[in-house]
Amino acid sequence: MKARVHVMLKDGVLDPQGEAVRHALGAMGFDGVDGVRQGKVIELDLADGTSEARIAEMCERLLANTVIESYRIETL
Amino acid sequence: MKARVHVMLKDGVLDPQGEAVRHALGAMGFDGVDGVRQGKVIELDLADGTSEARIAEMCERLLANTVIESYRIETL
Repeated sequence: MKARVHVMLKDGVLDPQGEAVRHALGAMGFDGVDGVRQGKVIELDLADGTSEARIAEMCERLLANTVIESYRIETL
Repeated sequence: MKARVHVMLKDGVLDPQGEAVRHALGAMGFDGVDGVRQGKVIELDLADGTSEARIAEMCERLLANTVIESYRIETL
């Protein structure tokens, strides 16, 4: 089975990488870009039957820093 | 309007970051993790009515390195 984990910085946490992208898009003439947030997506190829709770444990322990990041699990 | 762009390394392109995550998960006792690919997700806050073609242009010119990365646009 496959699962996809999206890890984004929590609202209110400064995102300098996203801010740099927003600024670069503006400088390249792309108008109307009001905000950019950049995060990670991690695609996992897992043994069949791996529970979502197990994937959440992977997120809590390794994939996301839950102090500043939130994560969302999507099983495919 | 909001759009989300997923940028992943193309198949066949070595992904050392994903490989490191796979290895770390195994070392932490998470069995059955056969493969990990890590990519970026970019959430854009755009002026209403921005066309998908315009977003694709942002991807081609800045957000993705299309030599080694593929991208997928999702409008929300």
